[in-house]
Amino acid sequence: MSIRYELLTVLRDHGPLSRAQLAGRLEVPRRRLLAELDHLVEAGKVVEAESAGPRRGRRSTLVKLDPGLRFAAVDLDARSVGVEVTDGCLRAVASYSEHCDIRTGPVNVLGRVTQILEKMRAQGHFTQLDAIGIGLPGPVSFREGVPVSPPIMPGWDRHPVRDVLSGEHGCPVAVDNDVNVMTLGEQHSGVARTVDNLIFVKIGSGVGCGMQIAGRIYRGAAGCAGDIGHIQVDADGPVCSCGNVGCLEALFSQEALARHAESAADDGRSLLLAELLAAKGCLTARDVADGAAAGDAVCIGIVRAGGRQVGQVLAGLVSFMNPSMIVIGGDLADLGHILLAELRSVVYQRSLPLATGDLPMVLSELGARAGVVGAAVLASELAYGSPVS
Amino acid sequence: MSIRYELLTVLRDHGPLSRAQLAGRLEVPRRRLLAELDHLVEAGKVVEAESAGPRRGRRSTLVKLDPGLRFAAVDLDARSVGVEVTDGCLRAVASYSEHCDIRTGPVNVLGRVTQILEKMRAQGHFTQLDAIGIGLPGPVSFREGVPVSPPIMPGWDRHPVRDVLSGEHGCPVAVDNDVNVMTLGEQHSGVARTVDNLIFVKIGSGVGCGMQIAGRIYRGAAGCAGDIGHIQVDADGPVCSCGNVGCLEALFSQEALARHAESAADDGRSLLLAELLAAKGCLTARDVADGAAAGDAVCIGIVRAGGRQVGQVLAGLVSFMNPSMIVIGGDLADLGHILLAELRSVVYQRSLPLATGDLPMVLSELGARAGVVGAAVLASELAYGSPVS
Repeated sequence: MSIRYELLTVLRDHGPLSRAQLAGRLEVPRRRLLAELDHLVEAGKVVEAESAGPRRGRRSTLVKLDPGLRFAAVDLDARSVGVEVTDGCLRAVASYSEHCDIRTGPVNVLGRVTQILEKMRAQGHFTQLDAIGIGLPGPVSFREGVPVSPPIMPGWDRHPVRDVLSGEHGCPVAVDNDVNVMTLGEQHSGVARTVDNLIFVKIGSGVGCGMQIAGRIYRGAAGCAGDIGHIQVDADGPVCSCGNVGCLEALFSQEALARHAESAADDGRSLLLAELLAAKGCLTARDVADGAAAGDAVCIGIVRAGGRQVGQVLAGLVSFMNPSMIVIGGDLADLGHILLAELRSVVYQRSLPLATGDLPMVLSELGARAGVVGAAVLASELAYGSPVS
Repeated sequence: MSIRYELLTVLRDHGPLSRAQLAGRLEVPRRRLLAELDHLVEAGKVVEAESAGPRRGRRSTLVKLDPGLRFAAVDLDARSVGVEVTDGCLRAVASYSEHCDIRTGPVNVLGRVTQILEKMRAQGHFTQLDAIGIGLPGPVSFREGVPVSPPIMPGWDRHPVRDVLSGEHGCPVAVDNDVNVMTLGEQHSGVARTVDNLIFVKIGSGVGCGMQIAGRIYRGAAGCAGDIGHIQVDADGPVCSCGNVGCLEALFSQEALARHAESAADDGRSLLLAELLAAKGCLTARDVADGAAAGDAVCIGIVRAGGRQVGQVLAGLVSFMNPSMIVIGGDLADLGHILLAELRSVVYQRSLPLATGDLPMVLSELGARAGVVGAAVLASELAYGSPVS
C-alpha cells in the first residue's frame, strides 16, 4: 500500500492529527512519511490546521485534509436516485434524492444526475469535484466502469457510465455494483467497522451479496461475485426469470412476496391481506412487511418461509467462506427481526459449529443510507489512490 | 510484502539470477534491493553462484539460494504418511511414504514422522531443517498450529502438532488443513500456476475445498473456510454423520459410493459388481471407479449421480465467488472424465453466464503429489517470511 494512500485515508477517518500522531498510526519510516506529507501540503491536498496547543513546551501543528475537497456519491436503484456531495472526510455538505425509473435509460438517468450536481454546484456546495462514486443495481465491470447485461436496466448494457460522468464533471469516476457499494459503506461507517471477512446480503427487488475479504471488496474474476439470487433452493420450485428452476430469487424477492400475499388474500387465509387487496387492487412486499409487523399470522408465515430459503443459501456460504460477520440490508431488511430470527435459526443449525461459534448475524446499521455512504467511500478510495483496482 | 520475502521467493521459483535480472523482476528501488541482498548473502541464505558469462564487456555474477537450505514436507491422510525433504527451490532430495493409520493418534503418527526424518538425516540428506510444512486431514487452526475437532482423527483435537515438531527438529513449523496444502501445491507447481482466484475441490474420503484469493490461501475467520461437505444437497436425503440431513458428504464420498455399489450388487442391477461382491465380501469406491472405467453402465450411473450432487454445490459457489478456475483433485478424482463432464454440465447450466463464460474446470495436474508439493511450499513460505499469517 502506498504511503500517500495510507496517509490520506488516516486523515479522512481520524484527522486532524499532529505529525507525531500520524507517525504513530502508520508503520512507515518517519522520514518518508514527512517527505510524503510535504508533497501533499505542496499539492494542496493537505493543509496545516489550527494548533494543538502547547506540547512539551512547544506548539505542535495539526494537519488535515484540504477542506475544499469534494466527492459526489451517487446511489441509483430501480426506482430512485440519491446524490450526496461530501468533503474529504466524507461529511455530507449537500444531499438530495428523488424518484427516478432506471428503465428510462442511461442518457435520461445520468442526465438527471448531472442536473442535480450542477444545481448543487450553483448553490455553492463545490466548485470542482475531486471524484465521483456511483453504485448501479446490476452487474458491473469495475475495471471498465460499465454495467454488463444488467437484468433490470434495459438500455444500459455496456453504457460507458464512468467515461460519460468523467467527461461531464472533469474528475475520476468509480462505478460499482450497488451491493458492493453498500458493503463498502457498512464496513467504513456501519456495523462492520472492525470486521475483516464480511458478507453483506441485500434483500430487496432481488437478493445479492457483497464480500469484504481481508478488508477489501472481493469482486471475482469477471466482477460478478456475490450473485446469489440464482442459487437453486428448490429443485421442484417455480421457473425463474433466468430460465432455471427454483432459484432463490424466484422464491424470495419483492415480486415473490407480493405473489404469496395475493394468493393468501384470494383464498381467504388472511383477512387483513384480503381487505387490503380489495381496497388497493394489488399487494406489495411492503404490505407483507406491514402485516407481519402488525402481527398477522399469514404475513409472518410468508416472511419466515422466505427467511428459511435465504437461510439455506447463507448456510452454504458460511460453510464455504467462514466469514466474521453477516450483515442483512436492503429494502426488505425492514422485515427485520422476524426475518433475522429465521436466518439465524437455519444458519446456526446447518453450518458447522466452528464456523458459527462466533458469527454475528445483524441488520445493517446504515439502512437506506448504506448506498450513498458507500459511494462516497468509493470516490475517496479512488481519489486517494486505493491499491486495489 | 517485504523485499526479503519477494527476493527469496523469486530466487526459489526463478533462480539463479543476476542482480540485474532480480531488479527487473521486483518493483523495488534498486538500492534497497541490493542492500537486502547483501544482508541475505551475509546471513548465508543467498550465495554467489557461477558467472553468467560476459555481459556488456564485464562478467555478471549470478546469485542463488544457499544450496544447503532444507525443507521437510509432510502429507498426512487417513491411511498414509508421505515425507519429502527438498532444497530451497523445492526440488526433492529425498522422499518416502508408507501406510499409516491416522487413528493410531498423534504421538504414534508424529513419532513415525520424526523417525522417517531422522533416517533421512542419517542418510546425509540434511544436517538441519530450515522449516517443516505439514498438512492434516481435518480442520486446523493455522494460527495456533493445532487440529480443531477433526472428525476422522480421534485423539488429535488441539494436539500441539506445530510445537511438538518444532521442538523435535529445532525449526519453525507450519500446520494446515490438507486441502489448503493441496491448493497451495496446485497453485505453485500445478495447473493453476497463473490463476488468482482458485477453488480446489478435494474428492476423497470426504469432500472439501481450498480457496486461493488474490494469490493467497483464504482460510476464513476461524480457519475452517472450504468445509463444503456439509452443505445440504437434498432436504429428503440420508442422515449425515454430522447430525443434519442430506449433506453432500452423506450422498457422495468413498463410503457413500461403496454403499451404492453394494446395493446395486445386491439387487442384481450390475452383474460386474455382484461378482466382485461375491468374490471380495465388500465393495469400495475404487470398485465403482474401475467399473466405470470398464464401461459398466451402473457404475457410470453412480458416478454421474454423484457428479450432479457435487456440481449442484459447486454451481452455488461459482455464483457466489466467481472464481477464475476450478481444480478437481483427491483420490476420487480418478473417477476422472465421467465425473468432470457431469460437474461441468451442472455448473455451466446452473451458474450465471458471466461467471462461467471463461471458467476452466480441470483435473489436478499434481494428482497424489499435490499434498507433499504444497507442504513444501508452505514450509518455504514460512521460512522466507510470508506476509500472511
